[in-house]
Amino acid sequence: MVTIARKAEFNAAHRLYRADWTEEKNRQVFGKCSHPNYHGHNYTLIVKVTGELDQETGCVMDLKRLKDLIGEEVVERYDHKNLNLDVPDFEDRNPTAENIVVLIWERLRANIPAHLSLKTVLYETERNFVEYSGG
Amino acid sequence: MVTIARKAEFNAAHRLYRADWTEEKNRQVFGKCSHPNYHGHNYTLIVKVTGELDQETGCVMDLKRLKDLIGEEVVERYDHKNLNLDVPDFEDRNPTAENIVVLIWERLRANIPAHLSLKTVLYETERNFVEYSGG
Amino acid sequence: MVTIARKAEFNAAHRLYRADWTEEKNRQVFGKCSHPNYHGHNYTLIVKVTGELDQETGCVMDLKRLKDLIGEEVVERYDHKNLNLDVPDFEDRNPTAENIVVLIWERLRANIPAHLSLKTVLYETERNFVEYSGG
Amino acid sequence: MVTIARKAEFNAAHRLYRADWTEEKNRQVFGKCSHPNYHGHNYTLIVKVTGELDQETGCVMDLKRLKDLIGEEVVERYDHKNLNLDVPDFEDRNPTAENIVVLIWERLRANIPAHLSLKTVLYETERNFVEYSGG
Amino acid sequence: MVTIARKAEFNAAHRLYRADWTEEKNRQVFGKCSHPNYHGHNYTLIVKVTGELDQETGCVMDLKRLKDLIGEEVVERYDHKNLNLDVPDFEDRNPTAENIVVLIWERLRANIPAHLSLKTVLYETERNFVEYSGG
Amino acid sequence: MVTIARKAEFNAAHRLYRADWTEEKNRQVFGKCSHPNYHGHNYTLIVKVTGELDQETGCVMDLKRLKDLIGEEVVERYDHKNLNLDVPDFEDRNPTAENIVVLIWERLRANIPAHLSLKTVLYETERNFVEYSGG
Repeated sequence: MVTIARKAEFNAAHRLYRADWTEEKNRQVFGKCSHPNYHGHNYTLIVKVTGELDQETGCVMDLKRLKDLIGEEVVERYDHKNLNLDVPDFEDRNPTAENIVVLIWERLRANIPAHLSLKTVLYETERNFVEYSGG
Repeated sequence: MVTIARKAEFNAAHRLYRADWTEEKNRQVFGKCSHPNYHGHNYTLIVKVTGELDQETGCVMDLKRLKDLIGEEVVERYDHKNLNLDVPDFEDRNPTAENIVVLIWERLRANIPAHLSLKTVLYETERNFVEYSGG
Repeated sequence: MVTIARKAEFNAAHRLYRADWTEEKNRQVFGKCSHPNYHGHNYTLIVKVTGELDQETGCVMDLKRLKDLIGEEVVERYDHKNLNLDVPDFEDRNPTAENIVVLIWERLRANIPAHLSLKTVLYETERNFVEYSGG
Repeated sequence: MVTIARKAEFNAAHRLYRADWTEEKNRQVFGKCSHPNYHGHNYTLIVKVTGELDQETGCVMDLKRLKDLIGEEVVERYDHKNLNLDVPDFEDRNPTAENIVVLIWERLRANIPAHLSLKTVLYETERNFVEYSGG
Repeated sequence: MVTIARKAEFNAAHRLYRADWTEEKNRQVFGKCSHPNYHGHNYTLIVKVTGELDQETGCVMDLKRLKDLIGEEVVERYDHKNLNLDVPDFEDRNPTAENIVVLIWERLRANIPAHLSLKTVLYETERNFVEYSGG
Repeated sequence: MVTIARKAEFNAAHRLYRADWTEEKNRQVFGKCSHPNYHGHNYTLIVKVTGELDQETGCVMDLKRLKDLIGEEVVERYDHKNLNLDVPDFEDRNPTAENIVVLIWERLRANIPAHLSLKTVLYETERNFVEYSGG
């Protein structure tokens, strides 16, 4: 079992916010991350896929296919967007780093063969990051 | 003449936009960077101050003073903000990386002794950055 | 189960040294890392906390609480200190990267709710780092 | 159980290629990575060794021994070489990142005490990396 | 006068070599960098363009134009190539980092408006880099 | 005129301190950087040498010679040392980053041919660095 990993980036605006809470409660729980006019990040995503080596090619999966998949499923949807306003994924979910990394995992999981396992890592800043492997 | 440099970060939303242009023209000139609902970045700022060494301390200027100055003049004003909506500096200026790095230079210049020269470097992403030294 | 991670730094002097060994034996086993007048590092710490998402907030734990905890338990104790002379944690333990990462884990473990699991990663230099998950 | 890790680099030329395939099929499967005159990378290797702390030294294993081992088994063999033409390891194996990381693991595994577990991570570029832990 | 900068990468094989020297002399002068079967690097290029701000756009030049220019003039020509064998630029020039950074500068200089000044920076590894500003 | 640059590291203990000042005044001026038992850093040094290209080799100077020079003049003297206690360079000079970068420049300047110009850059941490070009 070998793991291959691929890095990508997207730049997006967001705020931490629950519509069913008052502005005051949002501010109290989420602090400056709940600033009403949004702030933003350069998100860095690492996608890890683990499986057996294909003995013929010496690869786990086609890296270009993985790169294209990340582009279609993540970068095109999230890059240069407002996660709260523009991305249906977050209509019902607060765009915390944790929720984003889980949603990206779900999007990719649906497109990667079932015999390969998947992990997603998302850096919100150089100092804060999150990881998800499903389950 | 020795140069000292200090790094800081702020996370902000912005869009490239001129209010006196149509949305169509903004989109045509600024591309996806003009997305109406904003996007965002982890901006990284490097401030460089050049001058003679104080022979008594062996320092160009007090680094803690420089750190505090960057905090007061830049980070507190820009961090977790929407540059277009929340920061008066950009009421009349499009928040391009170039305009931001010039404005930061002007803010700091006013607070650093005249015998020291100043340069500001601003990374919008790891791939794009700008530099300004005044004049 | 989602993992959140937070990065911090501290700058400290240390030497690898056992008081019950001769200088010669310390030098023989620990090499230049046992230099009697100490040397130093910019230590970089990554703290990872894993648990279920709080469905209400979309967070594993309050990131500001984690940041403050790292500040109180690690940075305030170790930063700008001599680990051998100033930090009681190392009175009876050689301040190897391994021992430091274990001690930091123990300090944090005592302050993080038991249903969350914990991992600490410590970079002594860009080339050398250590990891500990307890047990 | 504590993990120690050490980073090293080597610069090498390679192409993805199976001698039993036509140039056309190699190009079709491996794309520009199969360019006949080779291309190259700055490979970055991270070696992780996990085991119990030696209570006397406070170390998992002698880090200098690990550094020397990586030098002898990997850097001296691969650095400033053409992996396809100069390195017998790849006579029968396509030098994909996956195959390289497995071969490095096998070389190191033979030289590290059996009670210590081993993981190798190899960055082909900043965006692509692979991991292997045996089994 | 403001400077904008853009980063790009290309992966290439090369060797330091003069055809009018013996293999022995090439080895003596260029050491392992002259290995006959080539080695390779992940080259990182930074292109800096300096000029007055366009008051209307707040930009020095269109960053997308700069990105495309680097792609056409540098990345498409050099990426996944053997600099010695595949790139006519190096038919008569030894592909040292110095010669590469000068050639890239010349290629870009011919395509950037004359009122803008140009600097190129090329990293051969994280430890070795070169800079050129013309003249 | 082309610039070549080389990076190196050394790990050292130091404190900011003037022997002719009281502990109280040292603490007041230099803050926690004056902690009596020392603290430490992973210093990163970048040495830049600028000159005309040797038309025969395509190099500014022999990079291996530069690497060795940095090793002999800087790393062997400063690495795994206490700058205040072990390094004669700092007997009369407070080991501020500014003084260190100037001293390194002076040491290297004496060993680099006069027709080449020299600049030294020293990172004390990722956030603080200094530059010196002589004069």
